[in-house]
This record gives sequence, C-alpha cells and structure tokens, in this order.
Amino acid sequence: MNIRDIARKAGVSSATVSRVINESGYVKEETKQKVLAAIEEAEFVPNAIARSLSIRDSSSIGVIVPDIANEFFSGIISGIGERAANNQYNIVLFDTGELPEREHQCLMMAESQRLSGLLITPISELDEVTRDKLIQFENKGIPVVLVDRNIRNSILDGVFVENHEAAYKAVEALIQNGHKKIAVITGPNTSMPGKDRLNGYKSALRDHGIGLREDYIVSGDFKIMKAYERTKELLELPDPPTAIFASNNQTSLGVLKYLTEHKLKIGRDISIVGFDQIESLKIIDYSLSTIDRDARNQGYLAMEMLIDKLTRKESKSSGRKIFVPYQMELRGSEKIK
Amino acid sequence: MNIRDIARKAGVSSATVSRVINESGYVKEETKQKVLAAIEEAEFVPNAIARSLSIRDSSSIGVIVPDIANEFFSGIISGIGERAANNQYNIVLFDTGELPEREHQCLMMAESQRLSGLLITPISELDEVTRDKLIQFENKGIPVVLVDRNIRNSILDGVFVENHEAAYKAVEALIQNGHKKIAVITGPNTSMPGKDRLNGYKSALRDHGIGLREDYIVSGDFKIMKAYERTKELLELPDPPTAIFASNNQTSLGVLKYLTEHKLKIGRDISIVGFDQIESLKIIDYSLSTIDRDARNQGYLAMEMLIDKLTRKESKSSGRKIFVPYQMELRGSEKIK
Repeated sequence: MNIRDIARKAGVSSATVSRVINESGYVKEETKQKVLAAIEEAEFVPNAIARSLSIRDSSSIGVIVPDIANEFFSGIISGIGERAANNQYNIVLFDTGELPEREHQCLMMAESQRLSGLLITPISELDEVTRDKLIQFENKGIPVVLVDRNIRNSILDGVFVENHEAAYKAVEALIQNGHKKIAVITGPNTSMPGKDRLNGYKSALRDHGIGLREDYIVSGDFKIMKAYERTKELLELPDPPTAIFASNNQTSLGVLKYLTEHKLKIGRDISIVGFDQIESLKIIDYSLSTIDRDARNQGYLAMEMLIDKLTRKESKSSGRKIFVPYQMELRGSEKIK
Repeated sequence: MNIRDIARKAGVSSATVSRVINESGYVKEETKQKVLAAIEEAEFVPNAIARSLSIRDSSSIGVIVPDIANEFFSGIISGIGERAANNQYNIVLFDTGELPEREHQCLMMAESQRLSGLLITPISELDEVTRDKLIQFENKGIPVVLVDRNIRNSILDGVFVENHEAAYKAVEALIQNGHKKIAVITGPNTSMPGKDRLNGYKSALRDHGIGLREDYIVSGDFKIMKAYERTKELLELPDPPTAIFASNNQTSLGVLKYLTEHKLKIGRDISIVGFDQIESLKIIDYSLSTIDRDARNQGYLAMEMLIDKLTRKESKSSGRKIFVPYQMELRGSEKIK
C-alpha cells in the first residue's frame, strides 16, 4: 500500500494525498475526509507509524563504495559490518561501479531511505554534486564519514591512508633496486588516492634526480582491464620501462595478467610494486611487493567514527581525519635480474 | 525522534504512546491528547508517513550472506547489485559470519526493515528457526530466493549449482591421475553444499572401488584457518593422503597456506582440487585445479528470480530451482610427480 494506492482508493491525485498527510496546501474538507477514510480503511496510518518507529529503533547506515568485487572494498564492508552489528545497525549497500552518474543516483536513493548515517568512498574529490549532497545530509542531521577518499574543499570527517607517503616509499623501493625507467599506471586522476599516489611517484623520482617522462605516466581506472591495456602500451614503447608502480590492487592484477599471458616473470624480466596487497597471492608466497594495510580495520574504524558522531548527536563534520597504518612489504618483485 | 522521545515529551510510558498510535487498548482521553500533542509538536506523524511513503517507492531488498570477505559472496553481491540497480532497488546487507545465532538476529533485523524481498544464503539446511522465518516472510507477501544453499523440507525457490555432480568430477580427476589416498576437508555438514559435496566425494570413491577412510574425512567450516589446521592434521597422519579435495575456495586457501609454509608444492609433492576458483590465482596462471563458476552471474540470476516473483506479485515459492553452469578446470594441481 503506497501513496498511489491510497490516491486510487480515494479517487484523487497522489499530490492531494500528499497534501493531506503533510497538512500542507489547501484541500477541500470533503476531499480530505475521503483521503483520510481511504487511509483508515487501508489501516495505513497506524501501521506506517508503528513500522517507522520500530525501524528507527534498528537503524540503517548507508554504505556507498565504488567496486564491491575489489577485495579491498569487501574487506572495508566486512569491517563496517562487524562494528555495525555490535550496535544493531543495518547496512544499506550501494555500488557505484566508479561511475559518477551512478553515484548521484545512489545518493538520491540513500536520501529516500531512513538512514541514520552514511559512509561513502566518493569516486572523485572534485564532484560538487556529491559534495553538496553530503553536506546536505549532515545539515539534515545525518552524519557522514568518508572512507579512503577525501573530497576537496570540504571538512568532512574520514578514515584515510597516507597515500603520498606510501606511494613515495613504493617507488623508492624500485629506485633503490637500480631502476631509472619507472612507469606508473595511475588511478582516476580526479580521485584523491589516484592523485596523491601519482604525486608520491613524482616526488620520489624528483628527489632521486630522475626526470619525469610523460610516456611512462599512463592513466588507469583502478580496474583490471584498463591496467592490462596500459601495460601492453608501456611494454610496446620503443624504450619500455623496467619497472611499474601499480596504483591499486586491481591495477596490479591487470599488470600481472598481461605479464602472465606474455610469459614475463616479475622480479626477473620486469619489476613491479603495487598499492594494496592481494590476500591469496600472499598466501601462496607470490613475490608481488605491495603497500599492505588492513582494509577490514579501516572499515571498522570508519564505522566507529560514525557511531561516535551518532552518539554525540553531532552530525556535522569538523575535518577529523584518521590515518590507518600501512607497511611496505618487499617480496621480490621490486628487483630485476 | 522515536517512540521513547515522544513518551518522554508527553510524560507517559512508551507502551502508552504505542497504544495511542496503534489505536489499541484503553488510554484516558486526557493522556491521549497529551501524546497527540507531543507527536504534533515533534512534527512526527506527517514526517513519518511521508517518509514511509517515499521509501515504499524505492524498495529495499534484504541480502543475507555468511561471509562477505569470501570473493564468492562479494561476486554474488556484485551480481545482485547490478541487477537490482536496473530496477532501482536498494540492497540491505547482512553478514552472518557463518554463525547461526547471528543469522537469526539478521532475520529479525530484516523483519523490522520495510523490505520488498529477501535473498539469503542460509548457513544450515536444517535450521528450523530460519526456515520458519523465511516461510513467514513469504506468507506476509515478501518473496524469498535462496542463494547457493537450499533448506531441507521447504519448497523455497533458489539458484544453486549441482554440488554433488561437480564434487564427483573433482574427485574423479584426482582418481584418474592415479590417486587412491584422497582426503576431503568438508564444509559445515549441516550446509547443503557441505553435505552434497561430501557425498559427491564419497560416490566418486565408491564408483571407482576405493574404500572410504574415516581419517581422510575431516570437517572444515568453509574458512581459511580451520582448513589450515585440518591440512596439518591430515599431513601428520601416519599414512597421509596424497591428494586433498577442498570443499570451497577458502578451504583451498587454507590448504595452500599450510603447504606454502611447509614448502610443499602442489602438483609435485601433493595434489589438490578445490571447489570454486580464486580469481587472482587464475590471473597468474597458478596451477590450482578448481570447479569454476561465475558467482556474479549466480547473484544476477537470483535477483532476477526475485524480481520475477515481485512482478508477478506472487510471493510464495513453488520449489523453482535454477542451476548455474560450472566447469572442471584442470591446471596441474590434480597431478603428482
């Protein structure tokens, strides 16, 4: 039973029903009585209220991520879920697929939900539609916490990692192994981690007196197939790089896919260091060197920050930032023989 | 603003507020007026109704899985999400962690949500609390579709894989490579895939005249650490197996973790065939032989079945079953040298 059903029952428009239940605008007394009768007949009001009350008691948290099939994000969600369950929160999950229009749709759908709070990994740090919507959420009393990606010109709270610093160390590990021809497959350059990791790469080269080469900086999208294509382009250059810095775990997988298909061995034919580990490769002691961090813990901390805001009944952000620890784990692929 | 806040405002008990809004039981007129005034002052009624109406328009689907960090389930959710987004459905996600009590809690939380339908991978095929609750959902007009695990003595619709047949083929591949000492690390034996895959193992041995050995049948829980411990037990037997059938992807990872730590190489020192692939191992051409299937597609089909039930306004199941395709992919680990 929804607003349209009531309207049909009462023989009026949905807008009229809406005016009646919101007590806004003019409605003829006779019409009003018809609508109220239809609502009563449908046992609509008491149920709706009763249900809304019980829902309020077990609250929902919106979680918007760009790619749930990426183990980093399923780890994040797992940590969020663990912390949420302790406080009887439900999770309403949205997957944007790294598509800005989808992100806007998800935010609209999230708005129509009775959410107590919102955790989001925004695709872009520059998207003003998303930024304004998030600030609107907080103004309406629904606190927001950013997960892993910041938004420029906002003071939204969030849980991040030191992307610039970690990327710097990853690239430095390659330099220390004698590499001078180091390429990067970036993330989307409008995303905060994409940009910061690229800048970390640039800083490391600069500090070690290695000139930047435009042909060694190729843009990826944090997904496997694009990274695969970019690897092909890099290795078909007249003067190909000897090492690649992969900006996230999916990028590493794209590189590995290409190398595997072409019988190129990491740590022998070509070097690679990636951002974010790949758990099953760690289990089999594969030589891929990565910046490791605990995604589950990062999700847990983000949910904890949100619960803290909910507890303090302070929905508005104050630019609070938590940075999770990371480790540069060298497993052999930074070398070349 | 919830029922307790209204009660506090009106200086009455929550039960009284509940009686007023549900128009049930006796409440003194004076008290009733006080409650209604508090509700009005809080602008509670119109908002609650308006919100409930708008929620009805963008519906939510509950998704209950046992382990979101398992790539099989993040694949399932990804497929569900893809299909759901086409029809503007939200996903309310619950992770039971393979814990029956948690599953019951999740079902209760799901009940308090305004869900249009429910997709669930039940932990056990024998859990009557879960079974009865799911039938209750359907009786209340909320259709249910089972994902990958059936429930005994029910005709709930679902999307599955032929576990017995696929497990049979996996074990047969080991037999055809000369193995006679084949162990199995099972799933939880109350889960439908756990039981069916074990029976597939038993049938394959029987059909090939190989006697069952109790010490080669060890119970796992579809998680890495238990499988790791079970592998240790198996390989420390006075007469250890030469091959292991791992009942799911996490079980394979547990076996691989133990083997890797003990410098044992699959396809040389010991053989293994696992149920469900591990994507990143496929990408690097790792020799693990597995029963492969498309989790994303399975999730997509489950959501499609649910949407079909919603469209036909037929919430009740009729024992409809879809079986997704699978392939036995031999990559070398079924052999021994």
